[in-house]
Amino acid sequence: MPEYNSDPDIFRDNGSTLIKGTLVKGDKKDIFIGDSCIIEEISDNYSGRFGEAEFIIDGSKSVASPGFVNTHTHAAMSLLRGYADDMHLQEWLSEKIWPLEAHLQADDVYWGTKLACIEMIHSGTVAFNDMYFFMESAAKAVDECGLKAVLSHGFIDFGSEEKRESEIKATENLYNHVKNMNNPRIKAAVGPHAPYTVSKEGLSWASDYSKEKDIMLHIHLSETEHEVKECVEQNGVRPSKLLDECGCLSERTLAAHCCWLSDEECELLGERKVSVSHNPASNMKLAVNRAMPYQELLNCGANVTLGTDGCSSNNNLDILEEMKTAAILQKFFWNSDTMLPAHEAIIMATESGKKALGFGNGKLAVGECADIVLLKTNIPCMTPLYNAESNIVYSAGSNAVDTVICNGRVLMHDGYIPGEEEVLEKASETAFSLVKRKEDGV
Amino acid sequence: MPEYNSDPDIFRDNGSTLIKGTLVKGDKKDIFIGDSCIIEEISDNYSGRFGEAEFIIDGSKSVASPGFVNTHTHAAMSLLRGYADDMHLQEWLSEKIWPLEAHLQADDVYWGTKLACIEMIHSGTVAFNDMYFFMESAAKAVDECGLKAVLSHGFIDFGSEEKRESEIKATENLYNHVKNMNNPRIKAAVGPHAPYTVSKEGLSWASDYSKEKDIMLHIHLSETEHEVKECVEQNGVRPSKLLDECGCLSERTLAAHCCWLSDEECELLGERKVSVSHNPASNMKLAVNRAMPYQELLNCGANVTLGTDGCSSNNNLDILEEMKTAAILQKFFWNSDTMLPAHEAIIMATESGKKALGFGNGKLAVGECADIVLLKTNIPCMTPLYNAESNIVYSAGSNAVDTVICNGRVLMHDGYIPGEEEVLEKASETAFSLVKRKEDGV
Repeated sequence: MPEYNSDPDIFRDNGSTLIKGTLVKGDKKDIFIGDSCIIEEISDNYSGRFGEAEFIIDGSKSVASPGFVNTHTHAAMSLLRGYADDMHLQEWLSEKIWPLEAHLQADDVYWGTKLACIEMIHSGTVAFNDMYFFMESAAKAVDECGLKAVLSHGFIDFGSEEKRESEIKATENLYNHVKNMNNPRIKAAVGPHAPYTVSKEGLSWASDYSKEKDIMLHIHLSETEHEVKECVEQNGVRPSKLLDECGCLSERTLAAHCCWLSDEECELLGERKVSVSHNPASNMKLAVNRAMPYQELLNCGANVTLGTDGCSSNNNLDILEEMKTAAILQKFFWNSDTMLPAHEAIIMATESGKKALGFGNGKLAVGECADIVLLKTNIPCMTPLYNAESNIVYSAGSNAVDTVICNGRVLMHDGYIPGEEEVLEKASETAFSLVKRKEDGV
Repeated sequence: MPEYNSDPDIFRDNGSTLIKGTLVKGDKKDIFIGDSCIIEEISDNYSGRFGEAEFIIDGSKSVASPGFVNTHTHAAMSLLRGYADDMHLQEWLSEKIWPLEAHLQADDVYWGTKLACIEMIHSGTVAFNDMYFFMESAAKAVDECGLKAVLSHGFIDFGSEEKRESEIKATENLYNHVKNMNNPRIKAAVGPHAPYTVSKEGLSWASDYSKEKDIMLHIHLSETEHEVKECVEQNGVRPSKLLDECGCLSERTLAAHCCWLSDEECELLGERKVSVSHNPASNMKLAVNRAMPYQELLNCGANVTLGTDGCSSNNNLDILEEMKTAAILQKFFWNSDTMLPAHEAIIMATESGKKALGFGNGKLAVGECADIVLLKTNIPCMTPLYNAESNIVYSAGSNAVDTVICNGRVLMHDGYIPGEEEVLEKASETAFSLVKRKEDGV
């Protein structure tokens, strides 16, 4: 792995940076990034503050995009990448994933989240929405890696009051921990796992807590047909209605998957201004057999965003790949060659994602957070450059991502992320040690 | 774009190369590559011929795979990448693609094919099956880039005898041209475009010519439901049956797409030992509304391979991405979470592809062609490395591809391809000049 040959100080926090001559929506622009997180100027022939910028990035062979947002993942599951694939869903969960997760420790989540952050930076991701366990360790990893994240403890009570009490405690602990970190890049959320794994009491508590603390409520919704049928049998209503009865649908809600929604449920989610996360690669790999009703949700007024899901069902965290998968799956499944055009895929992965996570509006403009991705234009997948959005969505891979800036800080430049090699080594050791603990039964 | 800092002689033809300590199917091996195209030795503790290798590649942080094969593309359409997307199919073809193609010249195809070759090398492709126009120029590009290819002129007569005669001439010219090149990496094929664009007379001629010269017959088959219905209306039989009546189905045949096949057609293709090319990304983007019946074709004995299609309907030539798209689309569409597992996706893209194109058997073994890809293991998408095949199919992007060797010659090393920068510049100029000629009507 190469060393970074230019000024390594470029990666430090609180520098000022000038990106010279990068392409922004078809025009060459200079972008001046101020002390922490505000783009101070975008102009065609910017000259006023060259002297003030501590670092200058040559943007002449790149196109700038707002940083991408991954609105549904389980970051530390990066440790499970490739551990078990191509199996029947129930067998896969009960024989492989859950037994391994039973041996998870805080340190695993720390290194798994670090690996995930490195991977997300490589595909231009600046913010993500995470649900898993030992989330204080995830918070530490995010803090160090420089990304923005909303973190929730996966709250599962299976109807047990005792389990519910411990999940409430874990959620409150995470909230207090994150509050004490006082890092504007990191937020806590409440994460009731799904309508089929959390009791009505648990869902109602989560709803109240989300309202009381004004934090996001992150939940899985209607990923499979099976869980919808089961919900109707047990509760007499479909899952969205059940959630609504427990107060769980609001503009603070982020519902992942949403494959098996009825038209009425789309309307309900729209009315409640819920954000939904489309997770096409995971849905396809796990053969859920229905694509999220993208157009219907959009028409009903839901905030439609994009997520990769975790690495055991995708198996990567590449948001560029996910944009393409979303755009082509929607066309294919709903039999419409014009559905989800490239521009809308970019909106899902930038503006709508940022809105869902409460990290600004995701635009590249004066006064906004400096969350910026530079994609190389001198690379085959971006050549020719008739239409940058089309190339980004349908053609570019993460090898096109050159530079990632989050909150004004350069996280990657020229494909280099400081400390990456150590993270890869430690995460790999951690993963194999986790498997060994499972096999040894300790 | 970086210069290559190590010995640039490594890229020359006819060198001998030793790859030290790379991972082959879970074991660390040394691979010795002889003078032109034969791997002479693979062993765990190889020591005998270190002194003889002119170049030594450190494989200790990589996994070796047989080179990948793209069995259906229109390479020079790389020039049309992003030119028109998200449109209705007929409008897209008649208002955008065909009018632009009407202005194509030989030089466009040369630079477009060069761009395509560079792009394919970056994702580990060593051989491809191409159908387009001005194919003598494509042959020159392939010759220079070092890949293997089967090249066919897109034969379209729309029932016109005059057009048919000129297409026969073009096909014969290409055959003779390629024969005279006397390059074992390049073969000519006959390319009747599709049952709906070529008359029965044209199809019969193509079949005879394929048999006479013992060359591949490359054709589009049953991509859309519309063309199947039209065929049944006009001919009283489904397209595969029509092709069979014209003698077009044999083990020399490569049929692309094959989305709308009936069970009987799968049986027929299996009986005739036809190779089929699955093109999932293109099928999804163009909303063809049915996935190729992979399992049925496999069960019937067809040789099932993988292709990207051209850049105006994909929009890249990334065979790694295509393996994943195939594996997850098949699971999703046919509602089976175990269908097309990673190992089978690798087989499609290596052994089955090589068999279809007649370039050996696509295995990494002593005595085989030295068509080898080294993928980095010290990269997030390959970490942890429980299962190399799973990581390659479900997680790796082309940024994992470090080294590509075709026919014993190193085409890319450390991500560097000699001459890439010039190809990108020339291809870009060529693309914009083509659009200008169309707009100027010249």
